[in-house]
Amino acid sequence: MTGGVTDEERLARAALTRVVEPGDEQSGRWLRQHGAVEVMARLTAPVFPGETLPGAGERRIEGHRRRAVEARPERDLETVAAIGGRFLCPGDPQWPSQLDDLGDARPIGLWLRGAPDLRTWALRSVSVVGARACTPYGAHVAATLGSGLAERGWVVVSGAAYGVDGAAHRGALAAGGATVAVLACGVDVAYPRSHAELIGRIAEQGLLIGELPPGSHPTRSRFVLRNRVIAALTRGTVVVEAEYRSGSLVTARAAQRLGRCTMGVPGPVTSGLSAGVHELLRGEAVLVTDADEVVELVGDIGELAPERRGPVLPRDLLGPAEAHVLEALPAKGALDGRDVARRAGITTDEALGRLYELHSLGFVERQGDRWQLVPGPIHPSNSRRGGA
Amino acid sequence: MTGGVTDEERLARAALTRVVEPGDEQSGRWLRQHGAVEVMARLTAPVFPGETLPGAGERRIEGHRRRAVEARPERDLETVAAIGGRFLCPGDPQWPSQLDDLGDARPIGLWLRGAPDLRTWALRSVSVVGARACTPYGAHVAATLGSGLAERGWVVVSGAAYGVDGAAHRGALAAGGATVAVLACGVDVAYPRSHAELIGRIAEQGLLIGELPPGSHPTRSRFVLRNRVIAALTRGTVVVEAEYRSGSLVTARAAQRLGRCTMGVPGPVTSGLSAGVHELLRGEAVLVTDADEVVELVGDIGELAPERRGPVLPRDLLGPAEAHVLEALPAKGALDGRDVARRAGITTDEALGRLYELHSLGFVERQGDRWQLVPGPIHPSNSRRGGA
Repeated sequence: MTGGVTDEERLARAALTRVVEPGDEQSGRWLRQHGAVEVMARLTAPVFPGETLPGAGERRIEGHRRRAVEARPERDLETVAAIGGRFLCPGDPQWPSQLDDLGDARPIGLWLRGAPDLRTWALRSVSVVGARACTPYGAHVAATLGSGLAERGWVVVSGAAYGVDGAAHRGALAAGGATVAVLACGVDVAYPRSHAELIGRIAEQGLLIGELPPGSHPTRSRFVLRNRVIAALTRGTVVVEAEYRSGSLVTARAAQRLGRCTMGVPGPVTSGLSAGVHELLRGEAVLVTDADEVVELVGDIGELAPERRGPVLPRDLLGPAEAHVLEALPAKGALDGRDVARRAGITTDEALGRLYELHSLGFVERQGDRWQLVPGPIHPSNSRRGGA
Repeated sequence: MTGGVTDEERLARAALTRVVEPGDEQSGRWLRQHGAVEVMARLTAPVFPGETLPGAGERRIEGHRRRAVEARPERDLETVAAIGGRFLCPGDPQWPSQLDDLGDARPIGLWLRGAPDLRTWALRSVSVVGARACTPYGAHVAATLGSGLAERGWVVVSGAAYGVDGAAHRGALAAGGATVAVLACGVDVAYPRSHAELIGRIAEQGLLIGELPPGSHPTRSRFVLRNRVIAALTRGTVVVEAEYRSGSLVTARAAQRLGRCTMGVPGPVTSGLSAGVHELLRGEAVLVTDADEVVELVGDIGELAPERRGPVLPRDLLGPAEAHVLEALPAKGALDGRDVARRAGITTDEALGRLYELHSLGFVERQGDRWQLVPGPIHPSNSRRGGA
């Protein structure tokens, strides 16, 4: 048991990711009313108590029952653990609670690969999405935004697809920054195939997350439903290039409905790949031209803008890994990620992951490639001697 | 005397365009308080009654008095008449009353070259402005907007400058449409020199207007002050390409202050020539990508959208030239401008000018290159037999 989640609950939720498709609101209602363990018990009962899980058509529920009986959640958890992954549930300390805004369409759980704390990273995250078949202009803008956001201490979230997604992730990685790929397949599946190396780098330097159990492959509807997770997870969504009726506009509109900041980068009106963005900008979305303008918008909203308020939690509530990295920073002056890693005796990727978390929580500042403690006792227990 | 304007008043106002610079609010107050004739009388009096025209510093008023004494308004009116021009005053039937929104900065009068009725044309006009040193993209967009607006029966207003202005005028002319150039010099001066042919074509097929008497040359401040006339005259202003702090942004902000619709065409964020437009679009301005979107915006505002309400004045109030062209249209079917001209026994340019006026007033419709009567008795006196 971790946090408030029992092993039984975790196994039931892991199993349910094999039973129902992402975003299914009917099973969301079942989970809310009966809990995951009870829902699995009913689905796997020798005689199905149909009336107790209302709304499942007979043929559909047969598929649910077959997949529930066949599910091997222990094996899935082992498979993912073997590649450095885990399965997060609502109630886990690392669960990003902004996903609760999705209501009954909230993910049942998140399969995850990579060391960083998703909840902390999501506090200062922006999604950058756009066309797969983007123009060189779109790729350039996405990469520039990705690195600009990373340099300003923001986590870049995208979908690991060709085009804008890939360019945004690569921009963040190139700046030594933090990036999260939300997948429409298992976190052990490299899709698209030719992004295998990029996805591998994100797993090492950032986070891969998804709703589907290991081995799952993407489908058209899984791509569409994945977009709601990107929208809900982040403080805002920037669309770089998108045709009319494209998937990126689905993400942007989902972000709008969830009250997240929706932004668009304009392009030539002669380009069909900017037409969808311009349509968006003629509505509620805000026109942005660089990372500063994005940060100005997402930094303003919500109650969590740590750099203005100091740390959002006391130092003695930090996990041991974060506290260890914080100790490795000198009282005065700045160090780059490699030096912090050396002083803490951990890998550079691990150090950078923790530094981004500490940055999200307001304990450290970033100056170019270097990191330093936020000066002064901003928070009662934010001193070198504070804490337990 | 034409309309409510006496010959004395017209001469005084024509003379005053040699005395004070465009947009001077102090002389605007004098005119409002004493009338043009009295202001000229005081400025040319042998002993200047200084206290009666308050606010003119001593050195400045000496210049005013010298220019007032030297002014030869009859000669200026003759010069302009010789090239097919005239001088419009507030109170003239063709005076565009929306210029009154400029308050004390309202033009003293407008020197004008070309046959069409400025007041009627201005009812359905949009300005298209932007950078002189525009990119090929900006020129393409301006020309496309110019012809698209003209094809939809809108009058394209701009400043006859290099770049976006010239492209917008040319687009309108190429579509056989109506266009107005607002000049920062005399209507007999071709500026810029290499636009002499374009300016000549506008004088024949459209209208050249300006606040400065014949022979006047543009200055930096005259360009800036000219922009307020473009903004006030039209229902909305579209900025195509503009750098930070450019003159086009001055026009756009003037339009905004006057409650006109302000629009911008986006471009690549990597282009400095779109940076000013993007700044505008991050404020109050509306993003537009084509002529349809412009027409949708400017067609909605104000009380004058003739195509939705039918004619704005009864047929028997039309001038003889307009009535003559209206009679030349068949009861059924459409004709192009040349055929209308042949039937009316006038030149094609003259016929198109009148057709645009009739279009603004809701009597005729345009279908591509062809013109036809608005079907049905939309207005009590809009019948073939109506009128005096």
